[in-house]
Amino acid sequence: MKIAVLGTGFVGRTFSAALVKLGHEVAIGTRDPQATLARQDSDAMGSPPFAQWHAQHADVALAAYPDAAAAAELVINVTNGAGSLDALAAAGTGNLSGKILVDIANPLDLSQGFPPFLNPVNTDSLGEQIQRAFPATKVVKTLNNMSAGLMVDPGRAGGGDHSVFVSGNDAGAKSQVTSLLQGFGHQDIIDLGDITNARAQEMLLPIWVRLMGVLGTPDFNFKIVR
Amino acid sequence: MKIAVLGTGFVGRTFSAALVKLGHEVAIGTRDPQATLARQDSDAMGSPPFAQWHAQHADVALAAYPDAAAAAELVINVTNGAGSLDALAAAGTGNLSGKILVDIANPLDLSQGFPPFLNPVNTDSLGEQIQRAFPATKVVKTLNNMSAGLMVDPGRAGGGDHSVFVSGNDAGAKSQVTSLLQGFGHQDIIDLGDITNARAQEMLLPIWVRLMGVLGTPDFNFKIVR
Repeated sequence: MKIAVLGTGFVGRTFSAALVKLGHEVAIGTRDPQATLARQDSDAMGSPPFAQWHAQHADVALAAYPDAAAAAELVINVTNGAGSLDALAAAGTGNLSGKILVDIANPLDLSQGFPPFLNPVNTDSLGEQIQRAFPATKVVKTLNNMSAGLMVDPGRAGGGDHSVFVSGNDAGAKSQVTSLLQGFGHQDIIDLGDITNARAQEMLLPIWVRLMGVLGTPDFNFKIVR
Repeated sequence: MKIAVLGTGFVGRTFSAALVKLGHEVAIGTRDPQATLARQDSDAMGSPPFAQWHAQHADVALAAYPDAAAAAELVINVTNGAGSLDALAAAGTGNLSGKILVDIANPLDLSQGFPPFLNPVNTDSLGEQIQRAFPATKVVKTLNNMSAGLMVDPGRAGGGDHSVFVSGNDAGAKSQVTSLLQGFGHQDIIDLGDITNARAQEMLLPIWVRLMGVLGTPDFNFKIVR
């Protein structure tokens, strides 16, 4: 499948490399490809400059947001949550129309330092904001509550014996995303219902952030034991 | 140990009966014992009248909030979250002073129907509100994200192979609560840190409520797979 991964950070890189391995044709979308390639410094999360990573992953294309989205059958949002609506607007409503948008971002508000707060929260979510802004796009929220490594390689923790949540308004879109998740090795995929459940998924972040500190690793996940 | 369980609903009853089985001396606290015993109707959660339950559990005492708290070495808050601060104020600051208060309540706001919202949320929590209101009491937040049945009998789901979180400012209090949890059969007890982590624990409720609907049972729990 032709897939656009919007976001050049660690999650976007990990996701893109894993999708290529599964045989997909992947373009990473960014605001300004030349500026992205020209960057010499590590990003805010400590990832090395994009060009350095890209030199070893020439099978992943780099394109401006609208070009990446226009060419894709499926689009994945791994931009910083605070900038996701802007990034998707730059990709273009028409380029996203009728397509599945897998939303993995979290609306983390770091304006008051660490740990982050969520904004929006409780009565709204980033997933719903995106669905409202792009009503002709099929938004599916998933994977936002685990490390990039576990998203694409669940076996890194407990042999993959843990759960992943999906929510969205379109049953067919959730079915396709479920197949994608199964391709990565996810076994227990729980459909929470419509996109309003993105609230519940995003509200897992505070305990996720805390557990990462307590456990000393990002490679853990929730299993729903029943 | 002499334990006061504040709250006469299903959670309070389940908890009290389980504590008696473990050999503790338990009093259920309520605002007005005579009124509680006189009630003829099922409560909001569909539990039968208290007197009917109490007739079969004569080994659990019933007392007014201040009397129950004054006599107890450890106090457990299982009142409705929206009324917890009032109930604890009725129990009396002096009667709670220096004691461990196990806070199991959730600040569910049902004013807009189901599913409930949280209030407070994100930048504050019920656990923190209680700790601020009763600074001489050692508040430990735990068990708020599972069914009453699982709180006291974790083996009901997955043979007990799941996790329980604790948070609080007093290490000794958390240690004693950990022992209590182990007494019920909990195996994986994760100390999240100080009471500000009650935010993260309470923010598990939205996905808990949704999962109960999807799975068709309250007897499930989160396991942190790592």
